[in-house]
Amino acid sequence: MHRIAVIPGDGIGPEVIEQALLVLDKVSSKFGVKFEYVFIDAGGCAIDKFGVPIREEDLDLVKKCSATLLGAVGGPKWDTLPGNLRPEQALLKLRGGLKVYANLRPAVLYDELKDSSPLKKEIVNRGIDILVVRELIGGMYFGPKGREKRNGEEVAYDTEIYSTSEIERIARVAFEAARKRKKKVTSVDKANILESSRLWREVVERLAKEYPDVELSHMYVDNASMQLVKDPSQFDVILTSNMFGDILSDEASMIVGSIGMLASASLGEGRVGLYEPIHGTAPDIAGQDLANPIATILSAAMMLRYSFDMEDAAIAVENAVKIALKEGYRTRDIYTENCKLVGTKQMGKIICENI
Amino acid sequence: MHRIAVIPGDGIGPEVIEQALLVLDKVSSKFGVKFEYVFIDAGGCAIDKFGVPIREEDLDLVKKCSATLLGAVGGPKWDTLPGNLRPEQALLKLRGGLKVYANLRPAVLYDELKDSSPLKKEIVNRGIDILVVRELIGGMYFGPKGREKRNGEEVAYDTEIYSTSEIERIARVAFEAARKRKKKVTSVDKANILESSRLWREVVERLAKEYPDVELSHMYVDNASMQLVKDPSQFDVILTSNMFGDILSDEASMIVGSIGMLASASLGEGRVGLYEPIHGTAPDIAGQDLANPIATILSAAMMLRYSFDMEDAAIAVENAVKIALKEGYRTRDIYTENCKLVGTKQMGKIICENI
Ligand SMILES: CC(C)[C@H](C(=O)O)[C@@H](O)C(=O)O
Ligand SMILES: CC(C)[C@H](C(=O)O)[C@@H](O)C(=O)O
Repeated sequence: MHRIAVIPGDGIGPEVIEQALLVLDKVSSKFGVKFEYVFIDAGGCAIDKFGVPIREEDLDLVKKCSATLLGAVGGPKWDTLPGNLRPEQALLKLRGGLKVYANLRPAVLYDELKDSSPLKKEIVNRGIDILVVRELIGGMYFGPKGREKRNGEEVAYDTEIYSTSEIERIARVAFEAARKRKKKVTSVDKANILESSRLWREVVERLAKEYPDVELSHMYVDNASMQLVKDPSQFDVILTSNMFGDILSDEASMIVGSIGMLASASLGEGRVGLYEPIHGTAPDIAGQDLANPIATILSAAMMLRYSFDMEDAAIAVENAVKIALKEGYRTRDIYTENCKLVGTKQMGKIICENI
Repeated sequence: MHRIAVIPGDGIGPEVIEQALLVLDKVSSKFGVKFEYVFIDAGGCAIDKFGVPIREEDLDLVKKCSATLLGAVGGPKWDTLPGNLRPEQALLKLRGGLKVYANLRPAVLYDELKDSSPLKKEIVNRGIDILVVRELIGGMYFGPKGREKRNGEEVAYDTEIYSTSEIERIARVAFEAARKRKKKVTSVDKANILESSRLWREVVERLAKEYPDVELSHMYVDNASMQLVKDPSQFDVILTSNMFGDILSDEASMIVGSIGMLASASLGEGRVGLYEPIHGTAPDIAGQDLANPIATILSAAMMLRYSFDMEDAAIAVENAVKIALKEGYRTRDIYTENCKLVGTKQMGKIICENI
């Protein structure tokens, strides 16, 4: 029996989560495991209900589950609230509270969806299969920050800060992941300017000695943002900090052309994990059965793999998605000519049937 | 008479500077102005000669000139030196020393070079004409940074810090520039996470009241890195911090497909300016007459415009470049079928003749 904290969140969150849970139900009956769902309010809906992005008691509940599946949080409605009352704070509290330091974001180009990429055919045809390994509970996101008066004017600051052990543990995740892939790690930093990047580079270099079978290279973040567009096929695993990872993983997800397809896993020590699609709440299409549930369904597959060690079930879900695509089913965001347009629910149903 | 500090630098720097100076000579005779060139060593070559990226006395010399034209600095040869001895330090010292807080980086798609863009025709056909206005002497680049032992392990940090006045002056540059363009400013930050971004947003909002004719919007940096690839035609002026600007301006330059074409101007109070191509030293092709001199030539045109108030001469140079492209002349980096392949020197010569 696995207890899963389920956080539908805002916007299209609840709709896509609903389909992911149907998929998990199907997995449950096929593979003879039991899932218990603990529903938690977090994000904008929690602000509306309780006045906070996530209640402490709910965070405690989440910590007691073996994994968390999250839809998406946020929306324009809450965008003008002060910083500590924003829906995004729920994400930070969950990440920090669960100590999930390793954010894995695969950006994979599906053969069937090549046309959706904004990049030219010549580039796309070389293939895109990148795993961004982003540090998730350090750096500027969690470092000291504040405001003060200096020389009579307001000044605000944030601190990008990393310790050796923080760098080491995330680098280890990248090297281990590369071993199961094409054995290439590109560590992205700004070591020509940042002291934190220089430490980053040293620690990664040192750790690389334990992984002689993995090829390590370093790249400045400005160059990485160019190379991702110029020739994404050069990348296998990208290892980077919280802030740079935020920017580069979004760029990587855009070049594969289908942000509605992309899952993510955030892992800590042991099997704890937070799983979520990388897309946002898409308030403009919420509640209209238009959202693509695949990113959330694939996030659930990652949960099966990383938190429950159910590799077979994970592959079954991933294959079910591939079959749906092969058969031409598309939600609006990935629709191209001659395909079969379906809504959120029908896409979920088709994928369930394919398992 | 205008005194120009000329810093050829490393790699292809000297070659492209040579052509830009020939262009300036032509401008000098055509427009009846005199330029005096003060040559300064900075970057890797200065490390080799003097043991420092730039000597204090040379920095003083530069400060006494009315503008600085720089090729490019750096290279693998100096990449393993300690942080304060890297060629890039020369750039930081020049920027900081000249107090050029506003880095203007136009990313323009030339009709003749559309095929070089990595983006699909449908996207490119909407046109790309972006001006990135990047803050250049604040933020993490210049904020407090260091290393220390904490709980027995090494920790390194950098501080992203901005004051109201620093934000205001760079925002003003963006609004003024937008007035002469399509009257749209997209201010890019990470206000959902960073305190410095929240202050940034407030100050920009406040200043926007002075520019009711300019349309202001805000975008998170992760989203901006996606939107630049998805639909660059939506942008006119992008206003952002030093670190985010470093990443986004490189991305913007890549999507127009011809980094060898892109100029930049870094401006401070008054007419002081530092002008440089945005490409690097390209050590692999240095000294082979293969480099594209256009970015440096266009940087010289920006110098004519911003530092010497010679709008006519600037336009003459820009037109001379356009004519060369129209006539089919291409250096290797922008070569496509049926064009006329030329080297660095010949490209410079052709442009001179077109003035
Ligand atoms: C919503 C925001 C706080 C978050 C982040 O910056 O980490 C998001 O962009 C992400 O990448 O998950
Ligand atoms: C060389 C480096 C220090 C520099 C920067 O980061 O500013 C460069 O990338 C640039 O954008 O001019």
